[in-house]
Amino acid sequence: MANEKKLVEAITSMEEDFAQWYTDVVKKAELIDYSSVRGCMILRPAGYAIWEKIQKEVDRRFKETGVENVYMPMFIPESLLQKEKDHVEGFAPEVAWVTQGGLEPLQERLVVRPTSETLFCDLYSNIVHSYRDLPKLYNQWCSVVRWEKTTRPFLRTTEFLWQEGHTAHATAEEAEERTVQMLNLYADFCEQVLAIPMIKGRKTEKEKFAGAESTYTIEALMHDGKALQSGTSHNFGDGFAKAFGIQYSDKNNQLQYAHQTSWGITTRLIGAIIMVHGDDSGLVLPPRIAPIQVMIVPIMQKKEGVLEKAYALKEELSKCFDVKVDDSDKSPGWKFSEQEMRGIPVRVEIGPKDIEANQCVVVRRDTREKITVSLDELQMKLGEILDAMQKDMLERARTHRDAHTYTVTNYEEFKTTVKEKPGFIKAMWCGEEACELKIKEDTTATSRCMPFEQEKITDTCVCCGKPAKTMVYWGKAY
Amino acid sequence: MANEKKLVEAITSMEEDFAQWYTDVVKKAELIDYSSVRGCMILRPAGYAIWEKIQKEVDRRFKETGVENVYMPMFIPESLLQKEKDHVEGFAPEVAWVTQGGLEPLQERLVVRPTSETLFCDLYSNIVHSYRDLPKLYNQWCSVVRWEKTTRPFLRTTEFLWQEGHTAHATAEEAEERTVQMLNLYADFCEQVLAIPMIKGRKTEKEKFAGAESTYTIEALMHDGKALQSGTSHNFGDGFAKAFGIQYSDKNNQLQYAHQTSWGITTRLIGAIIMVHGDDSGLVLPPRIAPIQVMIVPIMQKKEGVLEKAYALKEELSKCFDVKVDDSDKSPGWKFSEQEMRGIPVRVEIGPKDIEANQCVVVRRDTREKITVSLDELQMKLGEILDAMQKDMLERARTHRDAHTYTVTNYEEFKTTVKEKPGFIKAMWCGEEACELKIKEDTTATSRCMPFEQEKITDTCVCCGKPAKTMVYWGKAY
Repeated sequence: MANEKKLVEAITSMEEDFAQWYTDVVKKAELIDYSSVRGCMILRPAGYAIWEKIQKEVDRRFKETGVENVYMPMFIPESLLQKEKDHVEGFAPEVAWVTQGGLEPLQERLVVRPTSETLFCDLYSNIVHSYRDLPKLYNQWCSVVRWEKTTRPFLRTTEFLWQEGHTAHATAEEAEERTVQMLNLYADFCEQVLAIPMIKGRKTEKEKFAGAESTYTIEALMHDGKALQSGTSHNFGDGFAKAFGIQYSDKNNQLQYAHQTSWGITTRLIGAIIMVHGDDSGLVLPPRIAPIQVMIVPIMQKKEGVLEKAYALKEELSKCFDVKVDDSDKSPGWKFSEQEMRGIPVRVEIGPKDIEANQCVVVRRDTREKITVSLDELQMKLGEILDAMQKDMLERARTHRDAHTYTVTNYEEFKTTVKEKPGFIKAMWCGEEACELKIKEDTTATSRCMPFEQEKITDTCVCCGKPAKTMVYWGKAY
Repeated sequence: MANEKKLVEAITSMEEDFAQWYTDVVKKAELIDYSSVRGCMILRPAGYAIWEKIQKEVDRRFKETGVENVYMPMFIPESLLQKEKDHVEGFAPEVAWVTQGGLEPLQERLVVRPTSETLFCDLYSNIVHSYRDLPKLYNQWCSVVRWEKTTRPFLRTTEFLWQEGHTAHATAEEAEERTVQMLNLYADFCEQVLAIPMIKGRKTEKEKFAGAESTYTIEALMHDGKALQSGTSHNFGDGFAKAFGIQYSDKNNQLQYAHQTSWGITTRLIGAIIMVHGDDSGLVLPPRIAPIQVMIVPIMQKKEGVLEKAYALKEELSKCFDVKVDDSDKSPGWKFSEQEMRGIPVRVEIGPKDIEANQCVVVRRDTREKITVSLDELQMKLGEILDAMQKDMLERARTHRDAHTYTVTNYEEFKTTVKEKPGFIKAMWCGEEACELKIKEDTTATSRCMPFEQEKITDTCVCCGKPAKTMVYWGKAY
C-alpha cells in the first residue's frame, strides 16, 4: 500500500493551501507540464483531451447558430494593430514582437496575435460590400500570446488556446442580439456540460474590452471563494467599422457602416473545472466533459477469466460511454488512486467473486458511493449514475456559490466581508469609476459584473453613499 | 445570363496558364484570401471546412493506432533549437525571431516554431524514465512558420496549418514500424478520401529531413505534370535522444536511449486536391472530403411549393449527406456556376415541373452528367452517384498519372523528357549526390523518392553510367 499513499500524500490539502493544491492537481493529474519557455505550458494528453471535448461541444453549438470557422494569420503588422486607438492602447504593452524573419531584420515589426479583431476587420473591409454579404459569422480556434508577468497553469499563461468569434451585421440591433446570444450559449454550455453555474452580466466601463462599446461576461465562483471570468462577449458598435472602413450598400443603395461583435472562451475553463469540482484526492470531472467516463479496474487480474471479462465489459459499454480498462501491472489500490487523481467519473471494480455473482462494484468519483450492480443492468445503471453525478455536481456548485454570496448594505460590512468571507458580494453602485478604484484599493475586490438579474438592495452606492444606479457583483478574482 | 458569364470568364483556362488558373480557383472558390502579412494566407470558410474534414478523418485514423493529442508552446528558445546540429542548420535560416516581449527586449531570442522536434524531445527527456513509459505516441494540430521567399496559396506559405506526430519507442524496430505505418496511413487516406493516388518511397540522403536517419514520403502528380510531396514520415533513430538525453531503464534495469519518429501532413493537401481534380469551371471536390456534398437548386423558386419542396428534400437527405439549399435571389444559372466553381460534388435541380412528375435532375460535378431521378429513389441514387464519382475521380487521377509517368534509360532521353513531357520519370541511379545535383542543374528535376515498389530498368545510373543501386522517381516539383 506504500505506493497509493505516496500518490495521495503528494497533493497538498485544498483547505491548507489552495494555490498549492491547484498546482499539485494540474501536475499529478498530468494535465500540463511546464515548458522551457517562461509562462508557456504544455497541454499533455489528459489536459488536451478535455479541451478537445470542449471544442467539440461548443463548435457544434456555434454551427447550429450559423457560425463558420476560418483561420487567420498569427502575425499582425504593427500599423494594422494601431488602426483602432483604444484597442492598441489596451494590447500594445503586453505583446510579443517579431523583428527578424530568416536572416534579415523586418521592415515592419509584427505582433504575435494577442487577439485578432484587426485581422478580421481588415478581411471584412475587403469582402463586405452589399447587404447580401451580411451577416458574417466567423470564428477561429487558435492560440494567442500575451506577455504576462505572473502566470498560472490554465488561468494566465503567455500563450493560451481559445476561440474567437468575430461577426459583422447590418444593424446595431442584430449585433446586440448576437452579443447576448453568444453569452447565453456560453452560460448554457458551462452549466449543462461543465456543471458550473454562471452569473451573466455586463462589465463596467472600467472593465470592458479595449475598443468595445459594451462587454458581457459570465462569472463563476471557485471553491476558494474567488471569482473567475469564464467567457466574454463584446458589442463593438460601429467603432471598428469606422476605423477599418467596413461599409456596405443597403437595400436603398446607401452606404452604411457594419456593426460588429466578438466573443471568446479559453483553456481557462479547464482551470474552472478543477477549482469548482476538485477535492483532496485530485480532479473530479463532470461526466459530460470527461474524456474517459468509466475506468474498469480488474481485481486479481491474473486469475483466469478476469481480464477477459473486463475487456468484454469495455466492449459492451463502449457503445454508450467512453471506457477504458486499466490492465497495467500496478496494484488495484494504486489504480484507484490514479483514477481518482485523474477525475474519471466512475470506476467499475470487477474480480473473480464479482464474476461468480454476476455483478460488479461501481464507485462514483464525487461522492465515493459504492454501488453493487448486476452485470445484466450495468449499462442502464451506469447511465443513471453518470446522469445523477452530472446533476449533483451542478447542484453542489450552485449551493456552494449561493452559500458564499453575500448581500451587503454599507461599506464597513463590505470591507469586513471581503476580508473574512471569500465569495461574491452583491452591493449597490453609483456608476462612478472612482468608487470602483477606491474599493479595489481598500479591499483588492473588483466589480465582476452588473448582472442581468438585478435586485434593489439599497438606494445608495455602497462606497460613496450617492444615489445608486445598479447592483453589482464584486469579488476578488483570478 | 451576363452574370454567369462573368463568373466563368474570370478563370483562366488551365491549359493556357496553369499557375494563373490555380490562383483564380483558390480566390473564386473563396478558399483563401490574402492577408496584410506577406506570405500569410487567410483560410476562408470554404477552405477551412476542407481542412476540418481532413482533420476529422485523419485524427480518427491516428487515434485508432493509439496516438494521443497534445499542445506544445509555439515558441522555442534559441538554445533549445541548437541542441541537434543537423536540425538547427536545416531550420535556422528560415525562421521568425521574437526578440521583444511586452516593453522589454528578451534575454534569449525565441523562434516561432518551424516544427517542434526540439520541444517534444525536451518533454520526453522529462517524462520518459522506464520502459513502462514507452511508447509515447503524441501528435499536435497547429500552425508553423517558415520564412519563405516566394509563396503560393496552400503550397508554400510563411505560416501554414499541419499536424506533427512525434513518437518515442524502446527499440529501433518499433520506431521503423511506426514510421512506415504512418506513411501507409497517409497514403490510404489520400487515395480513399482525397481520391489521389500516391507513390510511396524513401527520400535520398540529400532530400531527407534535417536530423532524420531516414525520411519516407508520399508523392503525387498534379494535372500539369509537376510532382507534389504530400506527406512525410521520419525515422530519427536515437540521434535526437542522444542530443536531448531521452533515456529509459529497460526490463533488466539497463539505461537505453529511446528511438524516435515524426510525421506530418499540411494544408498543402488542399492544393493537391485542387491541382489533381480541378477543371476550367473551378474546383472539383471528391465526395468524401466535400464539406457540402449536395447543393439543391430550386428552379422558379418563387412558384408556390418549390422552396418548400427543396427544404423538405434537404431535411430528408441530411440524414445521409451534407446538403444545402441555395435559396438566394440569384438566377439558377448563376447558382449553377457557383456550385461548379466551389466544386460541390452534385447538384439537385428541382422546379414546378419536376415536382409534378415526382422527380428531379441530379448533375455530377466531375462529368456534368445529368440524371433524372424519381424523388422516391433520390436518397439511394445519390449514394450511388457519390460513390461512383469518388471511385471515378481516383481512377481518372491514376490514369492521368500513369499516362504521365515515363520510363527512361539514358541521359539524353531524360533531358528531352523533362523538357517535353511534364510528369514523373522513372530512371536508375547510382546513389551519388553528385548525379542528383547534376540532374537538378541540367533539368531542374529532383529526385522525388526511391519507391518501395522497385523495378530494374537498366544496370547503370541514368546520369553517370556507373552501376545503378536503385530506381528513382524524378520530376519537377512544387
